[in-house]
Amino acid sequence: MEKSCIFCKIGSGEMPGDFVHRDDEIFIIRDIRPRAPVHLLVIPIKHLQGITDLDADDQPVLGAMFLAAREAVQKEGISDTGYRLIINSGQDGMQEVPHLHMHILGGKRLRGLGLS
Amino acid sequence: MEKSCIFCKIGSGEMPGDFVHRDDEIFIIRDIRPRAPVHLLVIPIKHLQGITDLDADDQPVLGAMFLAAREAVQKEGISDTGYRLIINSGQDGMQEVPHLHMHILGGKRLRGLGLS
Repeated sequence: MEKSCIFCKIGSGEMPGDFVHRDDEIFIIRDIRPRAPVHLLVIPIKHLQGITDLDADDQPVLGAMFLAAREAVQKEGISDTGYRLIINSGQDGMQEVPHLHMHILGGKRLRGLGLS
Repeated sequence: MEKSCIFCKIGSGEMPGDFVHRDDEIFIIRDIRPRAPVHLLVIPIKHLQGITDLDADDQPVLGAMFLAAREAVQKEGISDTGYRLIINSGQDGMQEVPHLHMHILGGKRLRGLGLS
């Protein structure tokens, strides 16, 4: 846990979060500034800055993130209508919190790849 | 392999692709309509429509996709500057080819989450 990390604080209960899932490895919360009708964040409890920092031991956490994401989209009713999974990394990727997280966006028709 | 699937055709060599990586499970090609200076597609050789269709046996393919992605961003020189990983699923997610693939985008400052 990183003391100054907002996702570590939410994961540990030190700060509130709107949880939709929680297990030993992963938690999923609603984004506080949703940019689609469904906007969730899939977050590993362990403080990993990003994909680049994963080592071999951390690989299973990615599988766990996707499994949890798949369950979440089913619960949210967007599994059939479609959704987008996004992991931003570093400055050019506009990563806002330096703790690995995956956005799940859905509930409306999303635009292209969002680059223009 | 799905006979009508463009990614299956590229993976099997029936159609050309600008390959940057290839192993037993995964290949990575450059997007033919790049929407950033670096725009790669990480594609499992096995025809899986999307995340929703992964079963337990297919879980390792996700790990392989991320490992390959991590190597690719290093080779492309965008590991430190940052990048975005995107998996589009279904109609609302604007999935263009119904064969699981992950976009890697980088080489410039990307905008927000690309939803407006």
